[in-house]
Amino acid sequence: MAVQSTAAAATQSATVSPESPGTSPSADAGYGTSFGPAAALSCRECGTRFPLSPIFACQECFGPLEVAYDLPLGDPDELRRRIEAGPASIWRYAPLLPVPADVAERPNLNPGWTKLIKADNLARELGVTGGLYVKDDSGNPTHSFKDRVVAIALEAARTFGLTTLSCSSTGNLAGAVGAAAARAGLRSCVFIPHDLESAKVVMAAVYGGELVAIEGSYDDVNRFCSELIGDPIGEGWGFVNVNLRPYYGEGSKTLAYEIAEQLGWRLPDNLVIPIASGSQLTKIDKGLKELIALGLVEDKPYRIYGAQAEGCSPVSAAFKAGHDVVRPVKPDTIAKSLAIGNPADGPYVLDITRRTGGTVEDVTDEQIVDAIALLARTEGVFAETAGGVTVGVLRKLIETGQLDPAAETVVLNTGDGLKTLDAVAGTGPTATIRPTLSAFREAGLA
Amino acid sequence: MAVQSTAAAATQSATVSPESPGTSPSADAGYGTSFGPAAALSCRECGTRFPLSPIFACQECFGPLEVAYDLPLGDPDELRRRIEAGPASIWRYAPLLPVPADVAERPNLNPGWTKLIKADNLARELGVTGGLYVKDDSGNPTHSFKDRVVAIALEAARTFGLTTLSCSSTGNLAGAVGAAAARAGLRSCVFIPHDLESAKVVMAAVYGGELVAIEGSYDDVNRFCSELIGDPIGEGWGFVNVNLRPYYGEGSKTLAYEIAEQLGWRLPDNLVIPIASGSQLTKIDKGLKELIALGLVEDKPYRIYGAQAEGCSPVSAAFKAGHDVVRPVKPDTIAKSLAIGNPADGPYVLDITRRTGGTVEDVTDEQIVDAIALLARTEGVFAETAGGVTVGVLRKLIETGQLDPAAETVVLNTGDGLKTLDAVAGTGPTATIRPTLSAFREAGLA
Repeated sequence: MAVQSTAAAATQSATVSPESPGTSPSADAGYGTSFGPAAALSCRECGTRFPLSPIFACQECFGPLEVAYDLPLGDPDELRRRIEAGPASIWRYAPLLPVPADVAERPNLNPGWTKLIKADNLARELGVTGGLYVKDDSGNPTHSFKDRVVAIALEAARTFGLTTLSCSSTGNLAGAVGAAAARAGLRSCVFIPHDLESAKVVMAAVYGGELVAIEGSYDDVNRFCSELIGDPIGEGWGFVNVNLRPYYGEGSKTLAYEIAEQLGWRLPDNLVIPIASGSQLTKIDKGLKELIALGLVEDKPYRIYGAQAEGCSPVSAAFKAGHDVVRPVKPDTIAKSLAIGNPADGPYVLDITRRTGGTVEDVTDEQIVDAIALLARTEGVFAETAGGVTVGVLRKLIETGQLDPAAETVVLNTGDGLKTLDAVAGTGPTATIRPTLSAFREAGLA
Repeated sequence: MAVQSTAAAATQSATVSPESPGTSPSADAGYGTSFGPAAALSCRECGTRFPLSPIFACQECFGPLEVAYDLPLGDPDELRRRIEAGPASIWRYAPLLPVPADVAERPNLNPGWTKLIKADNLARELGVTGGLYVKDDSGNPTHSFKDRVVAIALEAARTFGLTTLSCSSTGNLAGAVGAAAARAGLRSCVFIPHDLESAKVVMAAVYGGELVAIEGSYDDVNRFCSELIGDPIGEGWGFVNVNLRPYYGEGSKTLAYEIAEQLGWRLPDNLVIPIASGSQLTKIDKGLKELIALGLVEDKPYRIYGAQAEGCSPVSAAFKAGHDVVRPVKPDTIAKSLAIGNPADGPYVLDITRRTGGTVEDVTDEQIVDAIALLARTEGVFAETAGGVTVGVLRKLIETGQLDPAAETVVLNTGDGLKTLDAVAGTGPTATIRPTLSAFREAGLA
């Protein structure tokens, strides 16, 4: 017996549709148990299923594909124990991911199992009384949540026999791909716009793969990558966020699993999640529903809130206007890792936030910087701008009565402040003094 | 029955000196069980013991003080199980540290339990056949091993009723103290030289404590801090690396514990450890000997190798010259976190490396940069300059026949490459091209 988790289920309600084993098309594709419980790729628009392969668009309607599973129904207690006995990484959830059972033994960066921090100081400042947690993904190997998604894409690349790992990126992803490929012994070739900040260029180049700067915008880089995939040059290439995207996206489910397990196998009332393409938010929702369907947590309502920067807030604008579609914008914000003006998963984000009773909100660059400082001085966590967006939005949600402060809330920090130092470059010494006690007294510090 | 682990034992051989309970001076000091198994402060020169208190120099001979323990002798299997069931942080070793039993429940950054990475790619490049591991402390909350030592000092500060956490620092330590104090709800006031790199200033300031820039060198900062401790202004202040230094130093023992546990409760043949003050190396040796004395690992020989940058290599110079004392130098190296010209623990490092059959070696700045790149491209680990020093020294040790490549070796990376980006600022794109396939082909990348 198995739980069939499809795109349709993931965007509506948690549906348990037992089907008999052996009907999985994965066997047809010839990859055996390489994808674990994954059964097929399924179109999120029309539901058509395809064998597991390096494709990303529906051959019927051009809709996006995602991984559908025959998840292991059985004794939830036994599955919980199996997970708890697993490694301190996302691979403890291998039974729920499109990866082989021996994935932890293959050379990879072993991301995940990052800290869920009980944020009592921040809760006091914000007036949260129901319990507040920060899920801090700056603890990943290259210090952003991207290590999770790249790790799954890497396994797919190995299974498909792809030998070059690639991506288009504005920073975090380039570093994550470079590091993962280096460790796995694969070639990497990563594409970035030519005018990136030097720190991000260094992070993308230091792992020794090919780094190609493109004279043009991020959109130009993306267009070029699509061209490359269609050309014979691109044979044997796995673009983690293009032709491996269905696998890549599944990595974000592990955030849901970890939050639930770290809370003692239960769901929080509210989650505040940043929106770039929107994929992370939709996959966290998918993960939460799988946990319920598998009996790993008790079924209860939860609200998902989306967080954007005002300078790139197409989903927030659509939410507030009551629209079902998202109108693209030209990004202008310091939160560059969230600066996707035409978010592919925008409509799904609108569905999920509305279905769960959450909202989508945005904050200004000034509020982002204030929130970075707030989180640092209350909990000792130095977040990148995306973390300033989620904490800033949480504050705004409480102030405007959109989020119940008496409910239990988890807010995500998806990256590290060391990667976006420019945002807080104004932070400096309280005083500069001569090395004498009298100078110290005169500065009013004694 | 208890294992008495003293300074004298730590610099000679692992001595087990059972003594009856109740003779511990800790009871006299009035702190009850606040320091767990710690029994006293003990002078590393003359062995005189003092009650646990915020002092750091022997009142008899002015020698440095360190923590002496009545460690829990008993069934090693039971202790191992207790540790394995503990939290994924240094607090799993609370029974072996000068901290209260409930330490994990107090607000702190929960550092440690960082990855021990099996480095097969690096091993192949270096010709290591006996197994090679990287202990990667960039995974700590503020991305250096300093979180370990600060966490122990923080608990001592709380026990002594100190309300301001302080330090002199050139970077990593300032961030670790600022973050730990913020999370614990203590005031912090950190002192740095006025001419630090801006990234380090931001990291020191972002947690919201007082940050005081001193017009002068790091030596001037240190002198000023010593003056402050002796002045009434300094009452209630805990300088983690001055008056709390005996506690602070114990944090480095956890590196030894973690390496042994992560290897499956056994010792490696060789350890390559960076030398700044030398404290980390001496405490790792202390930790390894405790593991043997407690029966947690089998007793076997191990060799400890010290690693310095050529531009600040007073211990390496003394080792090679056969001296017992270390002649101070004026540092000039890109490995700034190791740039201590007059290392306090230098003589102890010479003792330990000679006693265990290891050596002390140094590498040039160019070799440091090469080693950072080597580690990044083989294992996907981006190390700070201190990690370039240890990996570079490992390579040199093998090339010069000082380290047996058929033996099992652990090399330490104590910090994150994002903190010392300048060292690899020359790293950049392979090519910069127009977004066309023909440009890609012309660049020779297809």
